[in-house]
Amino acid sequence: VPNKRLGTHTIAFETPPVLIGHAAVAGKKEGDGPLGNSFDHISTDSYWGEATWERAESQMQKMAFAIAADKTGIPQRQVDFIFAGDLLNQCIGSTFGHRDSDIPFFGLFGACSTMGEGLCLAAIAIDGGFAEVTAAITSSHFCTAERQFRFPLEYGGQRTPTSQWTVTGAGAAILAQSGTGPAVTHITPGRIVDAGIKDPNNMGAAMAPAAYETIRQHFEDTGRKPDDYDLIVTGDLGAMGHAVVTDFFKRDGVTLRTYQDAGLMIYNRDQQDVGAGGSGCGCSATVLNGYLLNAIRDGKWNRILFCPTGALMSTTSAQQGESIPGICHAVAISTIG
Amino acid sequence: VPNKRLGTHTIAFETPPVLIGHAAVAGKKEGDGPLGNSFDHISTDSYWGEATWERAESQMQKMAFAIAADKTGIPQRQVDFIFAGDLLNQCIGSTFGHRDSDIPFFGLFGACSTMGEGLCLAAIAIDGGFAEVTAAITSSHFCTAERQFRFPLEYGGQRTPTSQWTVTGAGAAILAQSGTGPAVTHITPGRIVDAGIKDPNNMGAAMAPAAYETIRQHFEDTGRKPDDYDLIVTGDLGAMGHAVVTDFFKRDGVTLRTYQDAGLMIYNRDQQDVGAGGSGCGCSATVLNGYLLNAIRDGKWNRILFCPTGALMSTTSAQQGESIPGICHAVAISTIG
Repeated sequence: VPNKRLGTHTIAFETPPVLIGHAAVAGKKEGDGPLGNSFDHISTDSYWGEATWERAESQMQKMAFAIAADKTGIPQRQVDFIFAGDLLNQCIGSTFGHRDSDIPFFGLFGACSTMGEGLCLAAIAIDGGFAEVTAAITSSHFCTAERQFRFPLEYGGQRTPTSQWTVTGAGAAILAQSGTGPAVTHITPGRIVDAGIKDPNNMGAAMAPAAYETIRQHFEDTGRKPDDYDLIVTGDLGAMGHAVVTDFFKRDGVTLRTYQDAGLMIYNRDQQDVGAGGSGCGCSATVLNGYLLNAIRDGKWNRILFCPTGALMSTTSAQQGESIPGICHAVAISTIG
Repeated sequence: VPNKRLGTHTIAFETPPVLIGHAAVAGKKEGDGPLGNSFDHISTDSYWGEATWERAESQMQKMAFAIAADKTGIPQRQVDFIFAGDLLNQCIGSTFGHRDSDIPFFGLFGACSTMGEGLCLAAIAIDGGFAEVTAAITSSHFCTAERQFRFPLEYGGQRTPTSQWTVTGAGAAILAQSGTGPAVTHITPGRIVDAGIKDPNNMGAAMAPAAYETIRQHFEDTGRKPDDYDLIVTGDLGAMGHAVVTDFFKRDGVTLRTYQDAGLMIYNRDQQDVGAGGSGCGCSATVLNGYLLNAIRDGKWNRILFCPTGALMSTTSAQQGESIPGICHAVAISTIG
């Protein structure tokens, strides 16, 4: 058995899996934001033509996957494994979205880190020789998340300034052993970090310590430095979490010159009334599969570190007074050659 | 990149990952059942010493993992990845159970198939050279499941004859590149199958078509026949689902002589008032990590096919009139030598 481990927590792929296709679909508010042009489809209808918002979310995953697969020229049925998850109880956005796919399915729960978790496992399956083509897919929907996690929309409750806005969007990435596109060269799967924060309206701060830990570990394991990346993107930490991560590295004497957060990139905070920024599995997923991977293909960047973050809590855990554990998986993506 | 695929949906491991340690912990009712002797710990306290049932479930996962790791002699911290999931909203049984572990964590949602999904991914990580030691862990708790999925326990609602009883229990398996114990030789990851059944009190029948599809596919891909296995175990289909799978194979002219179901093995249905049998992630997990793997070590069987099944629904999907998609992952386990 080959040893593909680097340092204590990082994997360096022998034959970096290639991101041969990717797509992002999003809602109207996201379409109106600064990255609107990069999305493959924008729906003005929050129901996406379906009877319920939950079905809409499933439809979003299905559509993101179909568009991503179309771009590769490989029929969907030739995808060996789907890795997918979402925020809904029992991940019904994903399971109902792919129930007709006839493709072996691995359901994931990584909260808003799911795009990273899916990429890690999809790349592992490829580089290990277990699959030729895999897909990592995730989604979130403002309306399904609000009614599940917070209040019925009809309630019209006041939002706090540190609260974030759940992105309506889905992203899909197709990975293969070879092909055209940037490649996943390294992954640093994250550990759960619980900093003891209990405010569900300040999840950015709750997740930031996990992001710091994973990114720091990635640098330690690979010997790389922040400036080796044209861009480091966490998500969805929002304004609070971005400041915390920046500060943590500063204390280590490390300046993050190229650091951005998906939750801050997707909306125009001055005009869109989204509190501290975007959140949800769909936030980092649409930013990656819409904006970032397209920009890499266009030559804007050669090497990025994609670090989506998840808050591993539920309404039950919050009601029971538990703190909010966070997780972050880091995925290094480079152009080849 | 090596090609480890066999047929259309099966993986044959090059260096079959070894199940070097395993443990099962369970509640009093499960301890009173026919497999009670095989569990490593039985708690008479449904709270497991914790303040809430949810924390009890996390404690169960933690304990199963600790006991399994202890048996291997390898410190928990040397486990490279944990793959864990459960039935609770946002999988808090798993995330809170392992938040202090400091081990890279992949959260899964496969409903009651989670032990199979975890074994698939834990084995892939090992055989691909991405990890030296991995753990697959899952749990369910009667009280957390009842109050989330059905009714508050205080309501005392009548149960239907086809309904199943959620197992209070957790199972953990530790896999490694080498060591002593049976090995995972093949996996056939499942596709989602939706037979259109809508009765949440008859999930065995809803999941049975998925079990049939995966097991049939496994035989087709490997060229093996049912009698090549000393035991084929689905779970948790219960009495209804077991009959459906048996019947489906009969129609193909195939007799399953060694076929059992974890949901039927764990309780004494005549005396324990559990409806059609056990269910929950903890059902197949405790049957595997308690009874089955111990019996293999004792020489009772040499080759088994472990096929846990999951119903991929939520209370929201049921309320919205959706049918219940099922999934089943098959894991072939053999003694080496």
